[in-house]
Amino acid sequence: MLNETHAPALKSWVESASDPEGFFPIQNLPYGAFSRGGRGKPRIGVAIGDQILDLGVLEEAGLLPTPQTLFDVPVLNPFMACGKEVWHALRHALSSLLSADNPRLRDDAALRDRALVAMAEATLHLPFDVAGYTDFYASRQHAFNVGSMFRDPANALPPNWLHIPIGYNGRASTVVVSGTDVRRPLGQTKEGEEASPRFGPCERLDFELEFGAVVGTGNALGEPVSLDQADAMLFGFVLLNDWSARDIQKWEYQPLGPFQSKVFATTISPWVVTSEALAPYRVATPEREVDLLPYLRDTGPMNYDVSLDVTLSPAGGGQAMLISRSNTKHLYYSAAQQLTHHTACGCRMEPGDLLGSGTISGPDRSSFGSLLELSWGGKEPLTLPDGGTRSFLEDGDRLTIAGWAQGDGHRIGFGECAGTVLPSVDLAT
Amino acid sequence: MLNETHAPALKSWVESASDPEGFFPIQNLPYGAFSRGGRGKPRIGVAIGDQILDLGVLEEAGLLPTPQTLFDVPVLNPFMACGKEVWHALRHALSSLLSADNPRLRDDAALRDRALVAMAEATLHLPFDVAGYTDFYASRQHAFNVGSMFRDPANALPPNWLHIPIGYNGRASTVVVSGTDVRRPLGQTKEGEEASPRFGPCERLDFELEFGAVVGTGNALGEPVSLDQADAMLFGFVLLNDWSARDIQKWEYQPLGPFQSKVFATTISPWVVTSEALAPYRVATPEREVDLLPYLRDTGPMNYDVSLDVTLSPAGGGQAMLISRSNTKHLYYSAAQQLTHHTACGCRMEPGDLLGSGTISGPDRSSFGSLLELSWGGKEPLTLPDGGTRSFLEDGDRLTIAGWAQGDGHRIGFGECAGTVLPSVDLAT
Repeated sequence: MLNETHAPALKSWVESASDPEGFFPIQNLPYGAFSRGGRGKPRIGVAIGDQILDLGVLEEAGLLPTPQTLFDVPVLNPFMACGKEVWHALRHALSSLLSADNPRLRDDAALRDRALVAMAEATLHLPFDVAGYTDFYASRQHAFNVGSMFRDPANALPPNWLHIPIGYNGRASTVVVSGTDVRRPLGQTKEGEEASPRFGPCERLDFELEFGAVVGTGNALGEPVSLDQADAMLFGFVLLNDWSARDIQKWEYQPLGPFQSKVFATTISPWVVTSEALAPYRVATPEREVDLLPYLRDTGPMNYDVSLDVTLSPAGGGQAMLISRSNTKHLYYSAAQQLTHHTACGCRMEPGDLLGSGTISGPDRSSFGSLLELSWGGKEPLTLPDGGTRSFLEDGDRLTIAGWAQGDGHRIGFGECAGTVLPSVDLAT
Repeated sequence: MLNETHAPALKSWVESASDPEGFFPIQNLPYGAFSRGGRGKPRIGVAIGDQILDLGVLEEAGLLPTPQTLFDVPVLNPFMACGKEVWHALRHALSSLLSADNPRLRDDAALRDRALVAMAEATLHLPFDVAGYTDFYASRQHAFNVGSMFRDPANALPPNWLHIPIGYNGRASTVVVSGTDVRRPLGQTKEGEEASPRFGPCERLDFELEFGAVVGTGNALGEPVSLDQADAMLFGFVLLNDWSARDIQKWEYQPLGPFQSKVFATTISPWVVTSEALAPYRVATPEREVDLLPYLRDTGPMNYDVSLDVTLSPAGGGQAMLISRSNTKHLYYSAAQQLTHHTACGCRMEPGDLLGSGTISGPDRSSFGSLLELSWGGKEPLTLPDGGTRSFLEDGDRLTIAGWAQGDGHRIGFGECAGTVLPSVDLAT
C-alpha cells in the first residue's frame, strides 16, 4: 500500500487551485501550521489554491492513511519523523481526496466545510520546531563576490571552497515565520579609521536570499550518511532570508565566524514544499571545477530549478521594486551534499533541522542575492522607482522573497518569505 | 515566603555528605537527571553525599514548595524556566529537609527509602534539553597561545578580543552527558604541502577544558538584557569538554568558523551546580586592559573561583596522569558578560541554552586547557607515567575533568566530566 505507484491527480475540485500562476495547485500540496483568525493552538494543514485543508479534521474523520495523532500537534516534526514512505502515502491520499473526480470530500458538504479554511482568514505559524539551524555558503558567485570585496579579487574563493560545502552553526531560536517584523540589531562596530569600537544600531542591514532544506528524519550520533541517504532524509524546502548586519559582521567574524551579525533573525516561508513535489524539477549541480572527494560526489541530479524573486517595498509606501531574480540551480552544492558533509564527522541530525543554502547569487548583478552585492558594498546604491536610493535596508523597508518551480501549466510555489524592518530598541532605555 | 532569608544548613543527616573532600555536601545541592539502574524514564534528583534525592517522590509527598508536576519530567527545563525566586525557594526547602536537625524526612524510614537512591546504582542522563549551545573564547591565555601558534606571536590576540566576548554558535544535538563514548570523527584535512584534501579519521583529536553556563530563564526576541539581568538568568554551571579535531579545524575554519571539527561531540558533567551554591565563590574578572563598552562593564564580581583538574587515562590501562590544573577565575569575560553580549542584537535565549566559556588556560603550561597548547602544536609531546607520549588523543584514551570550589571544610563539587575515545567508523563500510 505504502509503495503503490499512482498517477498524480492533475485537477482539483478546489477551483482556485487551477490558476496557472497560483502557488498551490494539486501538484504542490505543501505543509504548514495555521490558526483560524490567529485563535487557538496552531494546526497542521495543506495549502490548496486559496484554501487550507485541515489535516486534524481529516485525521479525526479517519480519511488519512497515517498513524493517528500525528496532526494533533502544532508542528510538523512528528509527521516528518515518520520518514519517506509515510510522506509518500499521505501525499497520495491527499492528492486523491482533492482530485476533481473523487466525490468523498468534494460531495460531503459538512466535512468539507470543517476541513477547508480560507487562507485569507488564517494566520500562518512556524511550520516546525527548528531543532538546529545550519547555514551554508554554497553559491560560487556569492563566495566570489564577497571574497572580491573583502579579500583579494585575484584569489576571491577561499582555498577550501571547491572541496567543502562550507557551513557554520546558526541560531535556531530566532528563526521566525514570514510576516514577523525584524528589529534592527544593536552591536559593536569599528570602522578602519576608528581607534576603538562603538555600540549602537546596525548601519548596514542586509538580507540574504537563501533556500532552506528541512531535515525530516535524523541519524544516530557517530554515524555519517551517504549522499543517497541524505537525499532521502530531506522532507522539503522553504524560502529563507538570513538577515545580516554587515558592519557588525565585519568587526566580529574573525576568527570564529559570524555571530551577533546573524542571530537576531532568520525568516522562513510558512509552507514546506516537499521533496516529492519538487522531484520533477531536479537538475544537476553545475559542472565540477575540481573533483569532489568520493563522499560528496553527485550520484544523480539533486539540485532544483526554482525561480526566486526578491522585492523591496521601501518605507513610506513607495512603489515596490524587483531587485533580484535568481534561481536555486546556481547552487554549487546541493542540500543533500550539505547534509552528507554535515554528518561526515558523525554529527547527529534531528527532525526539524534547517539547512540554509547560503546566499544564492546568479552570474550577473540582476541575480545577486544580497544588497551587499547589489550595491557592491554600498558603492553603487540601487535607485528606487521614486528616485530614492538604497545601499542597505532602512527602517520600514519590507523585503519579500517569492519562489516557484515552473511546471506545464502550473507552478509549484512557495508562497512568500517577507519581513519589515523595525527601528532598533532605544539605547537610553 | 519565597524571599525569606535563612541560614543555610551546615550538616546533613546523610552522613556521606560530611566528607570534606566529597563533591556533594549539603552546601551544594546540584540538580541532575537519573534512572535507577538505567531503567525507566529519567527522573530529576539532587546529589547529596553518595546519594540522590528523588524530587519526584518529594513532590508527590507534598514536601516541596514548588508548583506541582515540575519534576514529573526527565529534564530540568520546566523547573529552570520558573526563575530565580522558585530556585531559591526549592533550595531552601531541600536544605531544610536534609538538615541534620530536621526529623521530617530523616525519621520517616518509608519515605526516605523511596526518596534516596544510591548514586552507585543510578545511571546519570543529560540533565536538561540543550536548547542551543554557544561556545565562547574567553580565556586570554588560550587566545594568546592559539594566536601565537597559528598567526603572529607579535599580534597574537585578534583585534576585537579585548572588546568582544567572542562566541560562535555550536551544535546542541551532540551535547552528551559524561560517560558517553566519543567516536573519532572523519573529515577533510589538508596539510600545507598536499595538492588536495583527503578524507579520513582525524589525526589531531583534542579536548578543550571549559566551564558551561546554563541559562535558566530566557528573554523575548528583540530585547537585549543588561549584565545584572543576565546574571539572574543563569541557573547554574557544568564542566564541559569541547572535543576538537584540530586537523579538520585547520582546513575548514576560514572564513566562517569551526564546524565539523567541533560538532561531533561536546561532553558535560551530569550535575548542574547552581549559581546560588557558587555565590560564596564569586570573584572579580581579571583587570581590564582596555575599557569595555558600557553594556559589558562589570557591575560586581561575576566570575567564579572553581579549581579544575584534567586527567588523561591512556589506552591500554596505563597509569592516569594529571595533565592540567586550571581555574575558572582566569576567564577574562564572565558568563554574565557572555550572555549580555549574546542578547545585544536581540537574540532570544531559552531555558536550557548552554554557554561554553571557551578553553580555560591559566598563565603557565601546567594550567593550559588543551593538548594543542600542552604539547605546543604537537612539537613537545607530553610524557606519560609509563614512558609513552601524547601530542593528541589516541583511541582508547579517557579524558576526565573534575572541578570544585573550596569552602571551609567542604567542597562545592561538579562530579566529573569524562569520555573515552572510540576508533572512527570504518570508511570501507
